[in-house]
Amino acid sequence: MEQERIDRERLARQLAFSLEIDKEKLVLRQTRLSNMGRRENDAEHAWHMTVMAYLLREYANEEIDVARTMIMTLTHDLVEIYAGDTYAYADADAREVEAREGAAADRLFSLLPDDQAEELRGIWEEFERNDTPEARFAHAMDNVQPMMLNDANDGWGWRSHDVARSAPASRNAITRMGSQVLADYIDERLDANVDAGNLRAD
Amino acid sequence: MEQERIDRERLARQLAFSLEIDKEKLVLRQTRLSNMGRRENDAEHAWHMTVMAYLLREYANEEIDVARTMIMTLTHDLVEIYAGDTYAYADADAREVEAREGAAADRLFSLLPDDQAEELRGIWEEFERNDTPEARFAHAMDNVQPMMLNDANDGWGWRSHDVARSAPASRNAITRMGSQVLADYIDERLDANVDAGNLRAD
Repeated sequence: MEQERIDRERLARQLAFSLEIDKEKLVLRQTRLSNMGRRENDAEHAWHMTVMAYLLREYANEEIDVARTMIMTLTHDLVEIYAGDTYAYADADAREVEAREGAAADRLFSLLPDDQAEELRGIWEEFERNDTPEARFAHAMDNVQPMMLNDANDGWGWRSHDVARSAPASRNAITRMGSQVLADYIDERLDANVDAGNLRAD
Repeated sequence: MEQERIDRERLARQLAFSLEIDKEKLVLRQTRLSNMGRRENDAEHAWHMTVMAYLLREYANEEIDVARTMIMTLTHDLVEIYAGDTYAYADADAREVEAREGAAADRLFSLLPDDQAEELRGIWEEFERNDTPEARFAHAMDNVQPMMLNDANDGWGWRSHDVARSAPASRNAITRMGSQVLADYIDERLDANVDAGNLRAD
């Protein structure tokens, strides 16, 4: 009877968290869908980059646990439900963003049973630290997916923010930590977008 | 040199597929986001049910390979990019839907390199056949996720289609094949929604 009560509470907490994360679908990003579509949201971005993580895993520099990489890419932006999205090239105070996201993580993950709260928080912190093969490949996907959409939209996202090549290029150094092959591909596409006038030359 | 040409073609095909599936974000479902939000799209649904598959996997009736379940839930609706969404309780000709979705699968998966085309097509067919532990648990997630949103919206989706309890209850028999615990939870919530007047009693 006591066990049954505990089990029902466990399921209730898992479902309360599951319902709360529905709100990630309302967090808008700067990236537009292909064919110059509407702005993408965080849930769509996470779905897209997770399918890509599975399909492109052969290009990871190091061997990765694909299930761990997938739950990492699926959940890496959840804190933005409370903390909001920070544009990649915004002039944001990194320490302020970190504090806001840490408070958001406390609030969100505590909805889960303790063991899962600890697990998902740990996976998010691992992503943020970027110090494992899975985190490095997840970061590569976090860069390649919007890069692919920007590229497909003739650099709309870059042109509308007057972005110079050095900005995505410096992110590409992070992609390179996860995947040399995909960083090479991005470098080529950045060159092509400079040639096309979609990215400012530095 | 020949190897390099082949590798570049492989990556190009993987990225062409990755870009094409961006369109799943435009396939709208009947389900509304929580708080009576806008209609959900297939990509958001896939993201949501995949996070849930990971968090709720302890309730699968049988042991499951979680990475295989996750790529299955992430991709199970991709054929709808070309075939469209069929409402769960629509009076659709099952054979006609099957033919349309088969043609869509031929077209979509053939964008990938042959080995990955075969793999993803096989995972989709496994989901459709629903004859493995992973497919059964994926179906449970496919039902629990929209059920949770309908429930959170005071049955809006059911009321607007004048749905009787027997319709979600017969889907719940499929959920039960994947998870007794989650099917029990759904049965309770269906009863509560009949009591609240959100579902017609049969």
